[in-house]
This record gives sequence, structure tokens and C-alpha cells, in this order.
Amino acid sequence: MNMKIALIQMEVVHNKAENIAHAKELIDRACDQSCDFVILPEMFCCPYSNDYFREYGEPENGPAQQMLQEASQEHGVYIVGGSLPELEGDRVYNTCYVYDRQGRKIARHRKAHLFDIDVEGGQRFFESETLTAGDNITVFDTEFGKMGLCICFDFRSQELAKVMGDRGAQVIFVPGAFNMTTGPAHWELLFRQRAVDNQLFTVGVSPARNEEDVYVSYANSIVADPWGTVLTRLDCEEEIGYADIDLERIASIRRQLPIINARRTDLYGTLKLD
Amino acid sequence: MNMKIALIQMEVVHNKAENIAHAKELIDRACDQSCDFVILPEMFCCPYSNDYFREYGEPENGPAQQMLQEASQEHGVYIVGGSLPELEGDRVYNTCYVYDRQGRKIARHRKAHLFDIDVEGGQRFFESETLTAGDNITVFDTEFGKMGLCICFDFRSQELAKVMGDRGAQVIFVPGAFNMTTGPAHWELLFRQRAVDNQLFTVGVSPARNEEDVYVSYANSIVADPWGTVLTRLDCEEEIGYADIDLERIASIRRQLPIINARRTDLYGTLKLD
Repeated sequence: MNMKIALIQMEVVHNKAENIAHAKELIDRACDQSCDFVILPEMFCCPYSNDYFREYGEPENGPAQQMLQEASQEHGVYIVGGSLPELEGDRVYNTCYVYDRQGRKIARHRKAHLFDIDVEGGQRFFESETLTAGDNITVFDTEFGKMGLCICFDFRSQELAKVMGDRGAQVIFVPGAFNMTTGPAHWELLFRQRAVDNQLFTVGVSPARNEEDVYVSYANSIVADPWGTVLTRLDCEEEIGYADIDLERIASIRRQLPIINARRTDLYGTLKLD
Repeated sequence: MNMKIALIQMEVVHNKAENIAHAKELIDRACDQSCDFVILPEMFCCPYSNDYFREYGEPENGPAQQMLQEASQEHGVYIVGGSLPELEGDRVYNTCYVYDRQGRKIARHRKAHLFDIDVEGGQRFFESETLTAGDNITVFDTEFGKMGLCICFDFRSQELAKVMGDRGAQVIFVPGAFNMTTGPAHWELLFRQRAVDNQLFTVGVSPARNEEDVYVSYANSIVADPWGTVLTRLDCEEEIGYADIDLERIASIRRQLPIINARRTDLYGTLKLD
């Protein structure tokens, strides 16, 4: 079964309403080509900075979510809504909402691995200064089968990706925003090897690069297939990318190169299966 | 602490005694440069084919092992003895022996994930037609700390690599022989991402390429550091490669990019720890 996806690598500015309106325009444009899934980047309506998460945040069913819900219904398309700062009580989460073709909310993932890094001579960032980590692994059902979902640094966890694969995810969607230190070093490598290891498709969608911003996104939104081949890879500017995913390829690759079937759980056990 | 390693990417011919003598010459040559570890390729004394494993096999302390034992003692060097077909009763294992500077056998790893693949229009090979799989995860002690060891298709298992890392391996040694289908697609990707995921060094050593042979080795012996940087990568001819490994880099990378510390075992559990 084929599934057409659109990757919205959008510019994010310092104005929430403008970001929401702009995301809507890009979704409209993407849907001119009748796709099945539209994926937005991490923090698509908020600058990626601890200084803005709370200010740009919104509670359940806030304006950014309303736009996503209405757009999915309007176009009859699945939307993986990148991420936005979600407010709940005193807490702020980095959260992705997913809507189906009827505009029903079918998944919510709160980033579970907060991004706290300090690379010598490179990037420093501590999400945990303002954000709270989520406590769930997210796999959701669609007409195409099960899909996995996580946010950026979550995908650094080989365990999380593996568990999503074990739970039947055929595609792992990853709104993310690697930077100019980790991006060139690890972004493509990560999406390709997670795809090969778990024998499924991986999709990463980033904000476009803005060299003037405090946090500079690497961009390079990407789709890799279960053989590790890059099907789509964008550059750094704002752009809509597309990929036609042939889901039959998962069974085919698993049969030809039986990494999953060859595992020796008698030796190393298994991660949590539910 | 620095550790100098030598990668013996050797030509393997259809004569066991010649292979053993040639491996000894190459070990001698490598040790002219006073290294700490010498690593041989998978099946360094036997053509990589189900037709030869039993014929070229030897029991515990056979001639290939004796050469390795004597060479390690003679040069005062650790030797990771690639692999050879080990005979025990009716069974044949694909086995790696490791010797310390005094010629003591300090580890034996039997390949635990047999290589059974059948890629459409590419490589077909079924080790399980002649070989028996081992049942152990192998981490051994040295003056430099703990080291992990596995053979070729074993390294396809993210779980095995992860458990070796969890048990303290600082370097994972992988005698291997990818082919002209899987090599270009996955070899470098695999060594780099296993290094990044587990924040340790990875070392792969292959036979040199012989286009005339039934199974054509990809060669490209490789060393990757915990940031995923390739420190050494050979081409396809017979060659000795070297790498100076700075083991302090492990703690440094783990501090700067805390992938291991960030893990959420409360969500996905852990693999077997012993």
C-alpha cells in the first residue's frame, strides 16, 4: 500500500499567530497535491528557546491545535502537528498532536527525553530548565496501520525507537530541530540507521534554517526507507517535500535481511512490550 | 588513556597453512609500530563459504589458535583473532579467540547471530546450513578496561551492542565480512551509529576484497569514535590500518551529549544486564 506524505519545512518567526496562519497556508499548498499525511516541524509556532516556550504555550484545544484540527478535516488528511508548547497547570510540555482525516485527535505525544546538551565549542541547550518530560510511548492507528511518533531528542533513544517498532509502527514520525553542531554530525546517520535497525520508514521534519535566530535549525528534513536509503531530503530553506512510501517494502526487506527475526532474545531479553 | 590498535585487512586464500603463515607475517609487521591491540578479520584462515568451514575447521588449541597465542606472547600485544571455524563434536562454530600480552586466552566468542540473507538481485548466504550459533555475549577485561566482542552479523543486533555497552565495553571489536550488497549500503552507517548510540568506539576488520572469490568481501575496515567520526577507514586491498584511540573521549562525549544518562528506562525497561 502506498502512502503519500508531505514534509512542511517551514520558517518560524517570533509571532505565534503569524506562525499558525503560515502553517495553515503551507498545509493548504501541500494538500493541492492530494497527500495522505502532512507533517509539521518541532515547535512550528514558537521560536525554539526557553525564553518563549511558556509565552507561546497553549492549553488543550488552543488556537494552534484548532487550526490543525480544522485543516485536517478541511483537506481530509492526516496531520502530524509538529510540536507546540502545551500548558497544563504550571507545567509546559513539548507536545505533538495528531489528527485523522475527519479532524479527530488520534494521538498526543509529549517529548519524553528532554534535550539537555552542552557540547564543547558547540551547542548548549537545557530544555529541562522550562519543560516537563512526558511519560508515554506513542504508537497510533491509521488506515495504513500503526505509526510511531516521537520528538527530536526522543529519537536519540534506540530503546524508544525499538519499542515503537516492536509495537508495530511502520513509519516513525519525528518532528525535530537538530542544530548546526549535531545536525551535520548525526541527523542523516540517525534517520538512516533507525530505519535499518528497525526495518521501517523514518520521517524527520525540521523548521527551516534561520541563521539570525538564537537556536539555528539544521533543517534537512528527511525520509529514509527500511534499507536505509534516503527517499527525500530537503536543504535548509523553507520548502514542502514529498515522499511516496511503499509500505510493502517493510515486509520485503524483513524477509531479505532478517534482522528482526534473527534476534536472540534468549541472550539479551527484551524491552517492555506494552 | 590512549590505546593504539592495528587492523589487519588481509587477503585470504584457499590454503589454511598459507593463511596462518601470512597472518603471522602481518601481525609481525603491525607490531613493528608497537601497538596495543592487533585485530584480524572474520574467517582469516578460511574462505568465507559453507563449502570450506568444516574442512578448514580446528578444535580448541588448533594450529591457527597456536599461532595467535604465540604471536601475542612474542610481541607482548593483545590479539583479537578475527574468526575461524571451530570444531566441537559434530558442530562448527564461527569463533573469535582473544589473547593478552602474555599469550593467555582471555575471551572466546562464538557468533551468535547466524548470517542468513537472501537479497533480491544481491547477496544470498545461509550460514545456518553448516554453522551452529553460539550462546554468549562477550565482554572481556584488559588493562584498558572492558572490551566488547562480536562477529559480523552479530553487530546487526542493536540489543547485543547495547548490552555490551551497558556491561562497560569501551570498544566493540567486530571481525566482519560484509559483501558488495550490504557493505556499500550499511557498513559505515552501522559502525558510526552503534558508536553514537552507545557512546563508545567501534572497530570493524574485514578480509581484503578478492573479486574472483565466491563471496566478495566489501573490506573497508573501519574505526569510529563515540561522536560517530570515522578515525580510520581502509580501502579494499590488503593493508594494515592503525588508530590511536583516546579512551577519555568516551566520558567527555557522554557528558556533553548525555544520551545514555537521558534514557527513560521507566518507560521501556532494560535489556538483560547480566
